[in-house]
Amino acid sequence: MITSRRTARDIRSDSRLAVLHALLSAGEASRNDLARATGLSTATVATVVAELLAEGLVVGAGRNRSGVGRPSTSLRIDGSRGAILGVDVAETYVRTVVFDAALAPVGRFEVPLDEHENLPGYVVDGVGRSIDGALGEAGVERSRVLGVGVSLPGQVLPNAGVSVFAPNWDWRGVRILDLLRARVDLPLVLDNPLKAIATAELWFGAGRSVRSLVTINLGTGVGAGIVLDGRILRGVSNNAGEWGHSLLVLDGRECRCGRRGCVEAYVGARGIQQTLAEIDPDHPLLALGHQRDFISAVAGGLDEDASGPLAELLRRTGRYLGAGVADLVAILNPERVTLTGWTAWTLGEHLMAPTNAELAVQAPLGSASDVTLDVSTVRGGSVARGMATFAFERFLGDLGLLSVDR
Amino acid sequence: MITSRRTARDIRSDSRLAVLHALLSAGEASRNDLARATGLSTATVATVVAELLAEGLVVGAGRNRSGVGRPSTSLRIDGSRGAILGVDVAETYVRTVVFDAALAPVGRFEVPLDEHENLPGYVVDGVGRSIDGALGEAGVERSRVLGVGVSLPGQVLPNAGVSVFAPNWDWRGVRILDLLRARVDLPLVLDNPLKAIATAELWFGAGRSVRSLVTINLGTGVGAGIVLDGRILRGVSNNAGEWGHSLLVLDGRECRCGRRGCVEAYVGARGIQQTLAEIDPDHPLLALGHQRDFISAVAGGLDEDASGPLAELLRRTGRYLGAGVADLVAILNPERVTLTGWTAWTLGEHLMAPTNAELAVQAPLGSASDVTLDVSTVRGGSVARGMATFAFERFLGDLGLLSVDR
Repeated sequence: MITSRRTARDIRSDSRLAVLHALLSAGEASRNDLARATGLSTATVATVVAELLAEGLVVGAGRNRSGVGRPSTSLRIDGSRGAILGVDVAETYVRTVVFDAALAPVGRFEVPLDEHENLPGYVVDGVGRSIDGALGEAGVERSRVLGVGVSLPGQVLPNAGVSVFAPNWDWRGVRILDLLRARVDLPLVLDNPLKAIATAELWFGAGRSVRSLVTINLGTGVGAGIVLDGRILRGVSNNAGEWGHSLLVLDGRECRCGRRGCVEAYVGARGIQQTLAEIDPDHPLLALGHQRDFISAVAGGLDEDASGPLAELLRRTGRYLGAGVADLVAILNPERVTLTGWTAWTLGEHLMAPTNAELAVQAPLGSASDVTLDVSTVRGGSVARGMATFAFERFLGDLGLLSVDR
Repeated sequence: MITSRRTARDIRSDSRLAVLHALLSAGEASRNDLARATGLSTATVATVVAELLAEGLVVGAGRNRSGVGRPSTSLRIDGSRGAILGVDVAETYVRTVVFDAALAPVGRFEVPLDEHENLPGYVVDGVGRSIDGALGEAGVERSRVLGVGVSLPGQVLPNAGVSVFAPNWDWRGVRILDLLRARVDLPLVLDNPLKAIATAELWFGAGRSVRSLVTINLGTGVGAGIVLDGRILRGVSNNAGEWGHSLLVLDGRECRCGRRGCVEAYVGARGIQQTLAEIDPDHPLLALGHQRDFISAVAGGLDEDASGPLAELLRRTGRYLGAGVADLVAILNPERVTLTGWTAWTLGEHLMAPTNAELAVQAPLGSASDVTLDVSTVRGGSVARGMATFAFERFLGDLGLLSVDR
């Protein structure tokens, strides 16, 4: 139903968000810089800055006298306002990163999880220990924590605090937020990693210069964080972005999700291993047990010798990835696609040429010419960074500075 | 870049649009009915209704005295305010439908196009003759026409008035709006059929009750009109929705777009013919030259006998369609998917069971359970209807009642 959901309060909220984004981008900026960067009027910027100064979120960073005119005060976000935590929960680890209030990382801690354990209590305890460890590493008191964002695999309803479905743990309808609150006792928000990488890209990557983008996570799992018109696409039940489980080949390779022929079965780390096994079943790199070691060794091998089975692996993987990205581009016609996740950071520069070549051939003409594909500039821990950003937004919401509609 | 693009003017515009939608839905409604239907305050509804009355768009339709309280005036959109034309240009025809100002059809006219002719002048002349014919059929004077919406195949930039790319005519960068204006001399808007079916579904179909939906066109061509959060997804260059040219099978059947394995090559009318040829190369229905005759005959055959080659054709087509829809559902997580276009209207009820069964198996668990798939209630000429709606919106924009950002 088409009803007016946007209010004057939302517009003020958007203005504050735009100013914060611009300040995070620039590091330091004057009010005039912020007006130029955001397109807002100087009067609006002045009002917003006054609110942010009053809440202690922003501080003056010195005065600039540049030739003529009145000196302007340079502003920055006050990192010392408190700490924000981003927690990335996966099947085999919980990684917590502590950020200052300007979202710069100041400490991290990782707790391994046994992937054969699947009780919610076990996972929750891992989250608790990871947070405790990270606060210790960063030397941050609990009382200084403004918010914690926790990413959980599978389908998550952030407002209800429910893990609807986490296939690898066989969770269905677990009221995980209540369990986490009982263990952690800090202000918490939940989400899914695809929404986290989307918001990380929006605040710190390509989202600073374009309004529509897709950021693709390449690792064990594969998925897409989608930003349209400056907003994260969540879908009706926060499950949008499961491009990794869309088809590359009907009735193709078995995917761990149960479907056959998914994109993930070809460009996820296991899929890349399988492709090499198809090219050369006796290839020595197939003996490497850990997926990350395998991907690193492939990148290293390609650095040394750009021919042979690894070159063929690169060609086929680029072809699969380019064809899959072409589908996203056909459906969404985005301005930018970025690759993120550890496979992208390790192998991405090698993959660019074959993937771009395939994308140009496979995507509809106008859409292919209007999209740019590259490796994300947000490197390392983009899930934790995105979750910290959600926690920061929630904190701003609690201050009454932002309408948070999640 | 995250800047605040929504203004107080947009909010007023949204309120007017919401009231018009509710009036079109209800046919007749009181101010209180409209407040209930839109979620707007009675004060806002009263303001909007006063504006619409002042412009002659809305008239009182009588007074209701229902027991207690003051009698309320029933309102409706004034169809006699003028005529709106929707023009659907395809490779083989130009179809114009004349609507009254309440968007009820009052006449139509179709001009055949020779698909081997591709000069812009030839197509423009067909549009002109189709409009002249439709106005004659409807008995409407040219001076009564408030606006004309023209849908063109391929990639269209509505504001620039350019057909960027129309593969079947081999058009690239044709300044078609200027050519049409010279021939037609009426207020014109351009768009692409996928955007037209999306807006038809938004105003007259499932979009009246949900905020996110995909409407799938099934005919010679296949594509998706996407509505997210109540707005049509256009993409960075108005090329979103080309799901028909996303992959079902990498390296699969040849598609007329040049790619291999596209969804259209399996569920477009020619794809359905090819599937039957794979099942039974000598099947008598394959002798039918015209695609529409073929699809009608398949539907008729299934009505008579639900076994044999046609039953297998239905099973395979439902499987292909369900798998392709599952990809859209995985990526977008919409609340509703509707099927439209002549194949859907003819064969859709037969296709529902096998398509839904495949969708349930192939889409990610949470997304599959949260989506409803059915045949659109907007039957016949949804492209022309959608284009008339765009022309109506543009007319409202010219009156200053709507911010039209296309």
